[in-house]
Amino acid sequence: MSSCKQGGEKAAEKFQEKSQEKFQEKSENKSENKSRKNSVIEKVRSPADLRLLKDEELKALAEEIRETIIETVGTNGGHLASNLGIVETVIAVHRVFDTPKDALIFDVGHQCYAHKILTGRYEKFGTLRRDGGISGFVNAEESDYDVFTEGHSGASLSQALGLSASSELTSDEKRVIAIVGDGSFTNGMIFEALNNCVAGGKKLTIILNDNEMSISKNVGGLSEHLTNIRTSKKYFAIKHGIKKNFAKIPLIGSSLQNFMRKIRDFIKRVLVSYNLFECLGVDYIGLVDGNDITKIETVLEEAKTKSVCTLVHIHTQKGKGYAPAERNPEKYHSVSPFDISLGVEESRGKTFSSVFGETLRALAEKNEKICAVTAAMEEGCGLLPFKEQFPDRFFDVGIAEEHAVTFSAGLSRGGLSPVCVMYSTFSQRVYDQLHHDAAVQKIPFVLCLDRAGVVEGDGVTHQGIFDVSEFAGIPGVRIYSPETFGELEGALTYAAGDAGLSIIRYPKGAEGAYDRSLFCRRGGYCVMKTAPGKCAASVVTYGRITKNVYEAAMSFSKKTGIAVKLIKLVKIFPLEESLAGELSECGKMFFVEEGIKSGGAGEKAASFAAERLGGVKVRIRAIEGFVPHGALESLFSDLGLSADKIEKELYDFVCGGE
Amino acid sequence: MSSCKQGGEKAAEKFQEKSQEKFQEKSENKSENKSRKNSVIEKVRSPADLRLLKDEELKALAEEIRETIIETVGTNGGHLASNLGIVETVIAVHRVFDTPKDALIFDVGHQCYAHKILTGRYEKFGTLRRDGGISGFVNAEESDYDVFTEGHSGASLSQALGLSASSELTSDEKRVIAIVGDGSFTNGMIFEALNNCVAGGKKLTIILNDNEMSISKNVGGLSEHLTNIRTSKKYFAIKHGIKKNFAKIPLIGSSLQNFMRKIRDFIKRVLVSYNLFECLGVDYIGLVDGNDITKIETVLEEAKTKSVCTLVHIHTQKGKGYAPAERNPEKYHSVSPFDISLGVEESRGKTFSSVFGETLRALAEKNEKICAVTAAMEEGCGLLPFKEQFPDRFFDVGIAEEHAVTFSAGLSRGGLSPVCVMYSTFSQRVYDQLHHDAAVQKIPFVLCLDRAGVVEGDGVTHQGIFDVSEFAGIPGVRIYSPETFGELEGALTYAAGDAGLSIIRYPKGAEGAYDRSLFCRRGGYCVMKTAPGKCAASVVTYGRITKNVYEAAMSFSKKTGIAVKLIKLVKIFPLEESLAGELSECGKMFFVEEGIKSGGAGEKAASFAAERLGGVKVRIRAIEGFVPHGALESLFSDLGLSADKIEKELYDFVCGGE
Repeated sequence: MSSCKQGGEKAAEKFQEKSQEKFQEKSENKSENKSRKNSVIEKVRSPADLRLLKDEELKALAEEIRETIIETVGTNGGHLASNLGIVETVIAVHRVFDTPKDALIFDVGHQCYAHKILTGRYEKFGTLRRDGGISGFVNAEESDYDVFTEGHSGASLSQALGLSASSELTSDEKRVIAIVGDGSFTNGMIFEALNNCVAGGKKLTIILNDNEMSISKNVGGLSEHLTNIRTSKKYFAIKHGIKKNFAKIPLIGSSLQNFMRKIRDFIKRVLVSYNLFECLGVDYIGLVDGNDITKIETVLEEAKTKSVCTLVHIHTQKGKGYAPAERNPEKYHSVSPFDISLGVEESRGKTFSSVFGETLRALAEKNEKICAVTAAMEEGCGLLPFKEQFPDRFFDVGIAEEHAVTFSAGLSRGGLSPVCVMYSTFSQRVYDQLHHDAAVQKIPFVLCLDRAGVVEGDGVTHQGIFDVSEFAGIPGVRIYSPETFGELEGALTYAAGDAGLSIIRYPKGAEGAYDRSLFCRRGGYCVMKTAPGKCAASVVTYGRITKNVYEAAMSFSKKTGIAVKLIKLVKIFPLEESLAGELSECGKMFFVEEGIKSGGAGEKAASFAAERLGGVKVRIRAIEGFVPHGALESLFSDLGLSADKIEKELYDFVCGGE
Repeated sequence: MSSCKQGGEKAAEKFQEKSQEKFQEKSENKSENKSRKNSVIEKVRSPADLRLLKDEELKALAEEIRETIIETVGTNGGHLASNLGIVETVIAVHRVFDTPKDALIFDVGHQCYAHKILTGRYEKFGTLRRDGGISGFVNAEESDYDVFTEGHSGASLSQALGLSASSELTSDEKRVIAIVGDGSFTNGMIFEALNNCVAGGKKLTIILNDNEMSISKNVGGLSEHLTNIRTSKKYFAIKHGIKKNFAKIPLIGSSLQNFMRKIRDFIKRVLVSYNLFECLGVDYIGLVDGNDITKIETVLEEAKTKSVCTLVHIHTQKGKGYAPAERNPEKYHSVSPFDISLGVEESRGKTFSSVFGETLRALAEKNEKICAVTAAMEEGCGLLPFKEQFPDRFFDVGIAEEHAVTFSAGLSRGGLSPVCVMYSTFSQRVYDQLHHDAAVQKIPFVLCLDRAGVVEGDGVTHQGIFDVSEFAGIPGVRIYSPETFGELEGALTYAAGDAGLSIIRYPKGAEGAYDRSLFCRRGGYCVMKTAPGKCAASVVTYGRITKNVYEAAMSFSKKTGIAVKLIKLVKIFPLEESLAGELSECGKMFFVEEGIKSGGAGEKAASFAAERLGGVKVRIRAIEGFVPHGALESLFSDLGLSADKIEKELYDFVCGGE
């Protein structure tokens, strides 16, 4: 068993028990892989089995893995194109290296489906991304073969380098392998780690999985550099040969050998072009066909013997084996469930993302200063219409959230009105940029955060529940959390024309459907009473969860005859002073938050009340730990945020004996 | 005037008024530059004057600037070695480019002294870093020549690229120049921006100021690459010549010209080595002597005409003109006031940094798993003794805070016990790494934050007052804020042996001297009463400011006869449940915090009380905006955190009519 995880085994056991339990509860989710009698995939219970297979069986296995992936992603949704491309490479890695003693790390961790199938999770693979099922990302609590829990781009090389350095220090036999997509190579952390590989990476093999795109098309100088390398394959093959032969010249020897060494050094400097990786002191082997198991095994065997950090540059076909995904890999990067005989259909419904994109496009028509900046999320963030109409004012900087924010700050200082948009979870990378490069500068700045709140399928590394707590300490920031499309339009229109620093956060999907007619807008918030008479408490909330809170409060009042005042914040930070008056009328405040409690809006409201009013008893229902993947309603229930649980807690708070 | 700043002029005027006012108030700070009759420096009121000078005058000017810098830094403290090295380059930039219309951006912004002297701030230069005086960093509120307020490494290229792109979009005449030290090139943001220069950087000239070290010695593959370039100067000069001649071949022409072009492309690919910058599509000119005004002007004139992003690689002598700094540039990177005839003397007093370093060294003696990781701050963080004794277990990763944290996480997963240390302000870069790569992984992790709290000389971009607010939302984190050396030793010893995620934060300098004998330790906090009898309020605080709070509370009780309960938190998050009992005895809570209010410990304590007790009236005295540079006691007074102001507020809170 791997020594690289503290309590890994126990955690894995615990996960399996819990997962079993939860999964049995939810019978509607039962979904098992088609039985494949006599198939190769059935025989592989672990990489040990894999190492016994013959060449023709490996080919069959790759096909069976692909079929399994296509079927499961069709049913459950998930990452498709990159997982289909990487199958052969993953097989080769597990055959050449001694996993899990050797540590295999995936950047982002979304390319892990073949890895999961090959490491004892084939039978559970049908539960991918479901309640209590296996995660769509590498997850250290699931298996000792998953070294870290992953989800954010760029972390892998730093992790791998740490493991490699610790392996050197403790003189164990561990080798470390990191599989990193070309898209992740646009991320600064990868560079910071690459820059340190010359020292700590002696036991590290980096596999650069070049499929010619990150999530959408790859951008920037590195992408062109990789293209240059690809288009001069032969040249690099010759060069690799020259270098290998040169390496055979002994370091000490006759004068002839000395002379040869001088020639070698001359040729190395003058004739042999460096590429970027070699510039940083990393050994480079490439370009290798990552869909050819034999070829990649040969190269990995070579890399395995080295005592310097080695980068193996492979080329894989994104979407391989599923024709629609081969034709349009971008569309099949990450998908919702779809009929595999028909392919993914365009969704036509309005979502917060589409409303954001359309609002920004419309604003840009009227104001030529408006620009859009994103970090490899043009499609996910609804920016395609904007990009089409205003290509010059559209900037996709690659998976480089930090640069995206500070670049936007540069545009703003230059007199333009940029709107920078990314997923809430990835904005965890930009605290300093928003602080130092936007807030300190006192320039107009708008950051929009898509996928705010609980995110169902992707799980623990993708929850958008931390942004309020993270960013509300930045002086001058205002945070808006629209619950309706109209509120999003309003907030974006206001913020884009304003001189301050604004964050606008909204969830995936559409606005909730319920009767909002009782709400009365008052500045940055909306107020309603659930019944006539004096209010026994104020119930304060914001964002998508308002629907559940509304239903809970209405049901509570209907059952008890007790009125409460429901306050929905749209501008959640800073709170408006008039709110003190609203709260003082009730005496008690129940705050419901689809976000982390520590530093969240609930704590701020409690502190706001304690300073201004004193004497206000408070209860906060918010999230207090990490949240796994699962169905939204199921997660809400687990978190005490379903309408029935909110109602129960409201009853306890208002009517319970204290 | 520059168009790249909204209201720049007004802000500058306002700054000057305010600065004048504040500066006149504080007569003890009066310090003017020696009068230099008939000197060149007196004649230069702006870059326009500079452009009229003759060659021999420029040489004299460079020397006079150096003298001025040495004198002022000797008196006021500041960054010395790099500022002495960059003088000629800054002169050349202001002569070749049309500042402030053209935008000059400094990475980190600490190399700006010559720039400030040349842009109308010579007369005020004696006020550098002082109360109401000019900032030690580039500061957009001071001058239109300062495009951004700077302080953190790696932001400049993203800012510059934003400005360059906005200049292209609006078709103005602006050129953008970024001066970036080689140390900053270890930072991931620089790479993220470099990767995008090929698209947006058409009007951008990057000056890579290579002085062969960042703050301490430079680390990593890039550093070796730069050394390779330096040692093959002639080769690159030839190459530059070849490229220039090739560029003259027209794109369309005769078959002979077509043939020439083919040869050119062949030679370019095979014969002309790429360096890292060229790999990323950036034009490279180097290596140029950055201390030779004529040479660098020639190269900048060439760069100015280009319509692709160009990197000019210069070499400068750190510490030039001050012999002790030439010999030991690391020691003279950033200094406290010193006698320039004697040089900087070793400080012998105990500080939180030295206690941290010594405690970690002692722990490492007993436990071979202990490692130290830092981001270019080995000296500032007190790690020299550790590095000396345990070189294999010491890791300086360069100015790469993100990598430092995730690399440490890798070491931790590998079974080691890393302690990662950086300045509080630079930890603004690591929210996601601490969250995603440490907390989610549930691995043991210790992050130590030096320079926590208000930081006097460095100012707005270096205040360590945000970390509590930023990090307290990460599930599982515990934050310690020791006020004494003993508490730091205790917290570090505990955390280094523990399986959780701990942050330990402490200020620059030594522990405060006052009588702590009345305090009684109870778990994570200490309690005392200021007088006999029932307490009228609890006064809660933590860290260095406790001394002021103690003095205020004792004085208040002595004057009024009213007792208060003083609670000093050592573990500031999460609060221990027993604290509810302590607070309930008093009814009112006054929280004093040397940190940002929003999301700080005060808000958490208020919310804690409102949930558990209700009915507790709260006042929080914390920081509510950005804090400029100045003397510590003066800043405390401005922030309401001096003992007399705390006492006044306590009186108002306890005795004032409400």
